[in-house]
Amino acid sequence: MNKGEQTRQTILQHAMAVASQKGLEGLSIGTLASQLGLSKSGLFAHFRSKESLQIGVLDTAAEAFAAAVVQPALETRRGEARIRVLFERWLSWAALTQLPGGCIFAAASLEMDDRPGPVRDHLVKIQQNWFKTRVRIVQTALDEREFHSQVDPEQFAHDLYGIVVAYNHASRLLADPKAMSRARKAFEALIDQSQNTRKH
Amino acid sequence: MNKGEQTRQTILQHAMAVASQKGLEGLSIGTLASQLGLSKSGLFAHFRSKESLQIGVLDTAAEAFAAAVVQPALETRRGEARIRVLFERWLSWAALTQLPGGCIFAAASLEMDDRPGPVRDHLVKIQQNWFKTRVRIVQTALDEREFHSQVDPEQFAHDLYGIVVAYNHASRLLADPKAMSRARKAFEALIDQSQNTRKH
Repeated sequence: MNKGEQTRQTILQHAMAVASQKGLEGLSIGTLASQLGLSKSGLFAHFRSKESLQIGVLDTAAEAFAAAVVQPALETRRGEARIRVLFERWLSWAALTQLPGGCIFAAASLEMDDRPGPVRDHLVKIQQNWFKTRVRIVQTALDEREFHSQVDPEQFAHDLYGIVVAYNHASRLLADPKAMSRARKAFEALIDQSQNTRKH
Repeated sequence: MNKGEQTRQTILQHAMAVASQKGLEGLSIGTLASQLGLSKSGLFAHFRSKESLQIGVLDTAAEAFAAAVVQPALETRRGEARIRVLFERWLSWAALTQLPGGCIFAAASLEMDDRPGPVRDHLVKIQQNWFKTRVRIVQTALDEREFHSQVDPEQFAHDLYGIVVAYNHASRLLADPKAMSRARKAFEALIDQSQNTRKH
């Protein structure tokens, strides 16, 4: 990694932490520059606009998410075991990635849904890819016949999103001590209704 | 309603629509004044700070929510029927209330979770009250023996939040045509696992 690329990575890591707390719209090239001891023109050399910085932050977060959540799941054997790793990692990825403001995608999704433009388009692409990844991983449990054939992998992947977002809400906003146990109970109910009981 | 109170309501209704799109932090007393053809000092006479405006918007939204969602549920007979009305109204309340940016509470929850202060505290109180309202309504289905006694009304109320937020995400960000049918399927699964089958 050359020096320019190192600086770019430093900026992006810092901007990702800031965006997790203040949102993508809360990023300011001027403020970032002063926080990092860089000149504003130096920062502009890396990101010509706020939009390109925001897109860079989303890509950085997507890479961190893939490393913290998707990769460990893909290294686990196919089927329910893989889905369990995916779920547990997803719940804790913001902590693992040391994002002070929690899941940047959950916040960005609500921040950006009313702001048409390239940043929103990029976020939608990332969220659609993540949905497809979940669907493929759920499908492995059908392929392995651990889940019965009436299970709709898209419905399961959709429901999983709700469980994780409800967990974020209960833990981060409400500081509910039962947030984690409720998320796990909801997950077990989803697994339970999907399991192929014929194999028992 | 005297003229001062009418002006206050006009400001709050407009501010609520703006906040649903741009967030509570996106509210600006100067911009609101010019959009409404009022003087900035006139607006300040009603809301002495941005914070008191934000709190006023949250209360206005909570009243609209109670009228659009909670009241129709309470007018329905106790038990599963009441829960069904609550759920259907919750899914559509932002449309019913003509909020151009969707559910203001979902957005504010993610916007405010990292912003300690009176606005966050007020939002937490509203969300906790709404949680307790859901719990009480779910409890009526246990009291009527429509749900079996192992159903945890708090877990059900928590899970319902996830279903609605996943719906908002799929419909508003991803423009997924299946958003509504997926929300209803998730809801039916939750009802299904709660029903007291002994009565059949």
